[in-house]
Amino acid sequence: MGIRTKQQYLDSLRDQHPDVYMLGEKVDNIVDHPLFASSLNHMGQTFSLAHEPEFRDLVRIHSPLIDEEINLWSHIPQDSEPYLRKSKVLRKVSAERVCILRCLEPDALTPLWAVTYDIDKKHGTQYHEHLVEFVKRAQREDLMVSASVMDTKGDRSLRPGEGDADMYVRCVRREKDGIVVRGAKANTSGSPGVNQILVVPGGALKPEEKDYAVAFAIKPDTKGVKFICRPTTRPSQPRQIEKRMSSQFSHVESIVILDDVFVPWSDVFMCGETEFAGQLVSGFACTHRAAKCSCQPGHIDFLIGVAAAMADLNGVPKAPHIKDRITDMIMAAETGYSAAIRAAVDGWHHPSGVYFPNFLAANVGKYQSCSKISDEYAALQDIAGGLSVTAPTEKDWLNPELRPLLERYLQGKQGVPTEERFRMLKMVEDLTCSEFGGWFMGLSINAAGSPQAERVDVLRLYDVERSKKMARKMAEIVEKDDKKKK
Amino acid sequence: MGIRTKQQYLDSLRDQHPDVYMLGEKVDNIVDHPLFASSLNHMGQTFSLAHEPEFRDLVRIHSPLIDEEINLWSHIPQDSEPYLRKSKVLRKVSAERVCILRCLEPDALTPLWAVTYDIDKKHGTQYHEHLVEFVKRAQREDLMVSASVMDTKGDRSLRPGEGDADMYVRCVRREKDGIVVRGAKANTSGSPGVNQILVVPGGALKPEEKDYAVAFAIKPDTKGVKFICRPTTRPSQPRQIEKRMSSQFSHVESIVILDDVFVPWSDVFMCGETEFAGQLVSGFACTHRAAKCSCQPGHIDFLIGVAAAMADLNGVPKAPHIKDRITDMIMAAETGYSAAIRAAVDGWHHPSGVYFPNFLAANVGKYQSCSKISDEYAALQDIAGGLSVTAPTEKDWLNPELRPLLERYLQGKQGVPTEERFRMLKMVEDLTCSEFGGWFMGLSINAAGSPQAERVDVLRLYDVERSKKMARKMAEIVEKDDKKKK
Amino acid sequence: MGIRTKQQYLDSLRDQHPDVYMLGEKVDNIVDHPLFASSLNHMGQTFSLAHEPEFRDLVRIHSPLIDEEINLWSHIPQDSEPYLRKSKVLRKVSAERVCILRCLEPDALTPLWAVTYDIDKKHGTQYHEHLVEFVKRAQREDLMVSASVMDTKGDRSLRPGEGDADMYVRCVRREKDGIVVRGAKANTSGSPGVNQILVVPGGALKPEEKDYAVAFAIKPDTKGVKFICRPTTRPSQPRQIEKRMSSQFSHVESIVILDDVFVPWSDVFMCGETEFAGQLVSGFACTHRAAKCSCQPGHIDFLIGVAAAMADLNGVPKAPHIKDRITDMIMAAETGYSAAIRAAVDGWHHPSGVYFPNFLAANVGKYQSCSKISDEYAALQDIAGGLSVTAPTEKDWLNPELRPLLERYLQGKQGVPTEERFRMLKMVEDLTCSEFGGWFMGLSINAAGSPQAERVDVLRLYDVERSKKMARKMAEIVEKDDKKKK
Amino acid sequence: MGIRTKQQYLDSLRDQHPDVYMLGEKVDNIVDHPLFASSLNHMGQTFSLAHEPEFRDLVRIHSPLIDEEINLWSHIPQDSEPYLRKSKVLRKVSAERVCILRCLEPDALTPLWAVTYDIDKKHGTQYHEHLVEFVKRAQREDLMVSASVMDTKGDRSLRPGEGDADMYVRCVRREKDGIVVRGAKANTSGSPGVNQILVVPGGALKPEEKDYAVAFAIKPDTKGVKFICRPTTRPSQPRQIEKRMSSQFSHVESIVILDDVFVPWSDVFMCGETEFAGQLVSGFACTHRAAKCSCQPGHIDFLIGVAAAMADLNGVPKAPHIKDRITDMIMAAETGYSAAIRAAVDGWHHPSGVYFPNFLAANVGKYQSCSKISDEYAALQDIAGGLSVTAPTEKDWLNPELRPLLERYLQGKQGVPTEERFRMLKMVEDLTCSEFGGWFMGLSINAAGSPQAERVDVLRLYDVERSKKMARKMAEIVEKDDKKKK
Repeated sequence: MGIRTKQQYLDSLRDQHPDVYMLGEKVDNIVDHPLFASSLNHMGQTFSLAHEPEFRDLVRIHSPLIDEEINLWSHIPQDSEPYLRKSKVLRKVSAERVCILRCLEPDALTPLWAVTYDIDKKHGTQYHEHLVEFVKRAQREDLMVSASVMDTKGDRSLRPGEGDADMYVRCVRREKDGIVVRGAKANTSGSPGVNQILVVPGGALKPEEKDYAVAFAIKPDTKGVKFICRPTTRPSQPRQIEKRMSSQFSHVESIVILDDVFVPWSDVFMCGETEFAGQLVSGFACTHRAAKCSCQPGHIDFLIGVAAAMADLNGVPKAPHIKDRITDMIMAAETGYSAAIRAAVDGWHHPSGVYFPNFLAANVGKYQSCSKISDEYAALQDIAGGLSVTAPTEKDWLNPELRPLLERYLQGKQGVPTEERFRMLKMVEDLTCSEFGGWFMGLSINAAGSPQAERVDVLRLYDVERSKKMARKMAEIVEKDDKKKK
Repeated sequence: MGIRTKQQYLDSLRDQHPDVYMLGEKVDNIVDHPLFASSLNHMGQTFSLAHEPEFRDLVRIHSPLIDEEINLWSHIPQDSEPYLRKSKVLRKVSAERVCILRCLEPDALTPLWAVTYDIDKKHGTQYHEHLVEFVKRAQREDLMVSASVMDTKGDRSLRPGEGDADMYVRCVRREKDGIVVRGAKANTSGSPGVNQILVVPGGALKPEEKDYAVAFAIKPDTKGVKFICRPTTRPSQPRQIEKRMSSQFSHVESIVILDDVFVPWSDVFMCGETEFAGQLVSGFACTHRAAKCSCQPGHIDFLIGVAAAMADLNGVPKAPHIKDRITDMIMAAETGYSAAIRAAVDGWHHPSGVYFPNFLAANVGKYQSCSKISDEYAALQDIAGGLSVTAPTEKDWLNPELRPLLERYLQGKQGVPTEERFRMLKMVEDLTCSEFGGWFMGLSINAAGSPQAERVDVLRLYDVERSKKMARKMAEIVEKDDKKKK
Repeated sequence: MGIRTKQQYLDSLRDQHPDVYMLGEKVDNIVDHPLFASSLNHMGQTFSLAHEPEFRDLVRIHSPLIDEEINLWSHIPQDSEPYLRKSKVLRKVSAERVCILRCLEPDALTPLWAVTYDIDKKHGTQYHEHLVEFVKRAQREDLMVSASVMDTKGDRSLRPGEGDADMYVRCVRREKDGIVVRGAKANTSGSPGVNQILVVPGGALKPEEKDYAVAFAIKPDTKGVKFICRPTTRPSQPRQIEKRMSSQFSHVESIVILDDVFVPWSDVFMCGETEFAGQLVSGFACTHRAAKCSCQPGHIDFLIGVAAAMADLNGVPKAPHIKDRITDMIMAAETGYSAAIRAAVDGWHHPSGVYFPNFLAANVGKYQSCSKISDEYAALQDIAGGLSVTAPTEKDWLNPELRPLLERYLQGKQGVPTEERFRMLKMVEDLTCSEFGGWFMGLSINAAGSPQAERVDVLRLYDVERSKKMARKMAEIVEKDDKKKK
Repeated sequence: MGIRTKQQYLDSLRDQHPDVYMLGEKVDNIVDHPLFASSLNHMGQTFSLAHEPEFRDLVRIHSPLIDEEINLWSHIPQDSEPYLRKSKVLRKVSAERVCILRCLEPDALTPLWAVTYDIDKKHGTQYHEHLVEFVKRAQREDLMVSASVMDTKGDRSLRPGEGDADMYVRCVRREKDGIVVRGAKANTSGSPGVNQILVVPGGALKPEEKDYAVAFAIKPDTKGVKFICRPTTRPSQPRQIEKRMSSQFSHVESIVILDDVFVPWSDVFMCGETEFAGQLVSGFACTHRAAKCSCQPGHIDFLIGVAAAMADLNGVPKAPHIKDRITDMIMAAETGYSAAIRAAVDGWHHPSGVYFPNFLAANVGKYQSCSKISDEYAALQDIAGGLSVTAPTEKDWLNPELRPLLERYLQGKQGVPTEERFRMLKMVEDLTCSEFGGWFMGLSINAAGSPQAERVDVLRLYDVERSKKMARKMAEIVEKDDKKKK
């Protein structure tokens, strides 16, 4: 079958009939639904890229597993190469098309590869074999695979199983041919539109939380699976001047509800091995954060462009405070990207053969580049001026009586058509004074883990003990072990 | 006539027939237009407050000018008292009702009072007398007066008169009975709905920019005045759960175009005296920034409430990083408010008798409390979690089939109805993932001057020379003057 | 006796013979010891000020208690007036003379006044009477009184009495005529040089920690009291050009050890009433933080002067990034000062009649103005350039062979003597590259409580519940109480 | 001759007799001078490392130029490898030994290599040949080479040649065998102790500034060269407990004065080719900033150790605000290091064959990791508590009478000897409350260029035009070129 086209991907969705609700109504056909359009458009890109001259060679890679050229997004990395390619692609694509979503696929498959290997080694299970078959199929058929990680949790002060037992996805029954799972996952962008969903635990688990140590794959239209969706940001078609970005690029978000869903053993990758849940979720989170170190800089590249274009159009490209704000944006972008590159080249091999990025660098880079998104939006408004939130609408602009007045009084840099300034003001509005801006901010802050989760990981992953030892040595504090030796 | 009711104010608008456009169409009746509703509601509050037990005594004040009890908003301050009252009112009202707008009235009249006094003294003109009459009328009739300050500017690297002559409002002709003015003012929130508009220069002027040194009052329906408006944030009616704040509290924004408008001399307060333009605009900006030191903390009070309620409903009110973010919000609010109080008590008297707030404190406080709004929105999303931008809509919640699923899987703190959490998530969404949030951010950043304008004023208002002198003295650098003495 | 002169104060110290150690040696006479000089000089200022024309009227105040004019520093405030005066004096004096230390006196006496009143009311004790007598004496004799608050604590994870019982000062024995106390207090700047030391608990206490709820006054040369001191920063004499500030202005720091010290009942102000310890220490900390809101801005005023003078001397006073850093310093200074003024006018009366500053404002202001000291030192070095830490010493400057070379190659702004630049570089060095700078940074960070202590207080003092209520109301969450009513 | 030992290096200095002044006196023998000790110790390390098992393989590298194994520090990089090695070595060595200084050697030789190549190509000169011979000699003889870059400048608002002509190093005379140079360079750490000094322009030059476009090598004891030095931080020997770091690790700083120094043509690498000055200085600055991206993280590693050890010893290793501050330090360290790694692997080849690091990444990383040093020192004091600046001296500790009292009252975590805490408090003091701390802060801020210089480079190096193009395309602004095509 091999690498698919966007059309082939969309066609494959027509054969799937997931149970989807949006705005309180059942959606029978997501492919043609206007409020799914930009989401599928995003995801479809991962197929288009493989046919675009600029990206073709970057996203096609040889898989030793099936000895075929495959799409980068279903590749299992054995070295830094696929990470470096991913970084380049994500930065470029995110700048102009916001998000491709499919980075979830390698970011979830890679730690699953390692963890299933480790579980089998310890417990004599066959999860790894299941996964290898799954990956082979994904590679051969160029499947769009997403990951559902975040449990709905309920009262966050409670552990899984405390309080309502279904607040975390769990195995309610083991049967001969498979398992029955229940619960729900939140924040699962675009998942009605994928070919396979990987469901994995959302956190580390204690031995007594066995039922919650469950990882598996399902098709979106598996019986018992229901999606309640938040639509893409509206309007779903760009107006003439307004909403040019938000109408084309955002995701359907969804809660996936698993109402006693049966999963055959062949699609189960963990069931009860609590001691591996932490490794899996942390492997996923950190690998995914490494990816965000590249895509967030892409978005910032775009914001820098808007800021600089706006400053030009206002006639003040050299104002020191504007240059300062743009410089800060560049810092955020390049900080993230440097982390991505270091994460790629300074990573580590797992005994199973897969190669992981440097987790510490990934966490630091993600935190540094994503946590400033709100500042960046504020900078855009600061640079654009009050008109970014007070200018009349395009309906006024298109009114022939009002147009000459607006042409005149909204003019900016001399000799440049007012329409350029009006368009750029509306671009700032679309980014910062819109549902889209808030949604993207949410994505920057909470996707791949909250800022606090990253801080916790940073402290955990850094070797504080080694540093303490140096400090104590310099202070000439004699260690007990040294004393004994004497 | 005396202090009016909200109804009387709205009725007065029915007698005005301004030339208003919105969404490309002419608006004949703003009072009943749904997209003007929240704007007039805001402004109407300034009348309601005078009849509400909680505020009545605060907003009624004796005017020595007409020896009557008047509405605080048309009072000309002679001491710190009205500023202290304004601070209390603004903080409280802004917390629950976002913005009253009418603070512009005293903030513009006070510096006009001083400046007209100074001009007359120097030039033997009669502007001050004009203004006194204007104020008396505003006080007697409890007029809603707004200020239009920001010129459309065009290419910001050009001075008034360079390039298109009409980019700054100017006097195009002096006639026997009055003057004819032309140009446009931007960012004039709510101005079609006021009784009088004060038009003042937007910046300091050079001697050769005489035509631009023009200040005057006009009624919104004066011939030649046209408003092109941006509507209030939509929807204009709250839904059942969503959009509870944004639908009730935002302003119509407008560009006011003055197409050769005639203004009788009695309503002219400056015409040609360029050397006073800087004093006027700076007096207005700084006084208005002092006001923002109180209203922004009010809004932050509300955000703190949302953050803390959200943390409760998620079951994690004591997470250190959440307490940190809330503490930072409190810092921003109290920093602004302390500046407001100090500005009030540490102000200065102008020879004309009016009392100004401390400008340095006002600038610092405004900058410190307003510039963090984007961080605060990010904090709300961080605390609320991803669901603030991914949760299903109220239409799903209201669908009886989906409701039980959402009741279950969106539950938060044990024992608390899920609806409370859903409502609060939607409040976070309404604040941070909406046109409203972007608009309010814009207001925080650019209203009363950009952050950079405040920084420039801070450096200008602080006595750096005095500090340098101390440093040089401590370093035992002998000053030339000292040397001579020896 | 009345208001003393600095000489009278110093003479009074000659009559005291405290048990003092410094640099491992016994110090018999602190008054003439070079390493005590700057400390006593600081403290002596509080007496000089009362005779200096600029300050005389500010620091002399009428005491209703003894119906005499007294020194401001032993006044018990009944309204905002003394706080406003203190603010003015502290800002001015700290700018040129760093620290007066004696603000501790009113900041400790005021909460003791309130707390002894409350204890007596509840327990029928006579502490308040003791304190009134103590204050009368302090006022009449213009005594220099300091406060010892910070216990040595030991393992900070343990409560008083857990682990070594003496890690917190405690009453080891109650006798007929008084009590016997043991323990040590740390961070007690300058205390060998005062007339009386107030010892109060360092934190809130639990009922079972009765022995630690002890407050009392002692003279420094009371039997059993020993001071182990850290000297003032060296050298203790300014060189010709270097060390002009550090050699004149810093404090002796000390640990005060109480080795079974007997205190007569008349000097005991609390003994066993654990429930009041928190109120006392918080009253002291918050009142003292209000004071720091004024003195830290004074120091920043000085730093601004050094920064601006340095920029002048380098020939780049208008570089935008330098103006930015100076603007940030001004922001920090004015933020603190606004908090001080608001704290003063927006305070509260205790039933005993004393007036306290607004604690919330005080905490916010202290945190905001003090926590940036390290940034400010970095800014000085940034503005001064590398020479602030690499320039040759004054010994090179004073060498006649090297002088012409340095005159030439260290020159800055044209037409200005190189010596001015050399002197200012050495001032930057003295502030930022010296024991003094580190000591002052420590003072800014940890005096009056650590930054974290202030953050905790900010969250505690703000009415979060009121904000939550507003948020819930806006979200239309029906409260239980409301439901019942319906 | 090959790779030298530290002893061989020190011996080579004995054969050099530079004209050195310190503390106003002539220094005849720097090798045995106590105030040169730590500086030479630092520099000597670059030789020791080549013989230490941990570093030996990292710092020995094959030079294709002379086909021998050489010391990494005189290698001319042809690919990323030497940069990656340098990063590892610098981070590790800086953590425990602060600074090796010799990174200046490759950081100056590499851009000189490229620039001389370019000049020769354009002008048919022979500078590159001169440099190749110089490098061969440096490699064969393992010479310690430093760079002198920063001109003394004088009034920074003037260009070279405006005002005093000697404020920038210049060629005053071209002779048959060489050139005569005059001027001075500042901030030249340790330069009396090197074997060769490279002198290069400190900034870009205009065509009319020909005399200032001069680059050359000199031995420190060349006739006419004089060093006026600032000593290493004192004391020069560690005390028993105090000053353990500052006494061992700091540099002599110096101003190098060139009083009509003759340089033979063979050691001249640029003379008059103004158009290449900018390329040279920027190549040096950016390459050196890449190096600082590795050594600053090393120092932060050490600070993290002190912070964490201090928190342990105080008994509060898990306090959230302490973990926060340590996490921030890790962020700064890893941000720098990621930039170093990316700079290495994402660099570029110059036509001459040398390989440069990624300049954008280097600037961002240097700025981000170095600009927080002051915060980090403040964090240490915050974590350590007030005792870090108020604790008694080691002389008290060593006094047998006072020792038991201090043992008792300075105790921290239960069960741990008080001496450990005392030692660590003194380490914090040595780092943050000392001349050393200020000196290191100065190094972090100003070495390799000021923060503002880095910001300017960041904006210059980033492709803003590309970003603008994307923004304009998304906004559907039709470009002139596109219009023409249509």
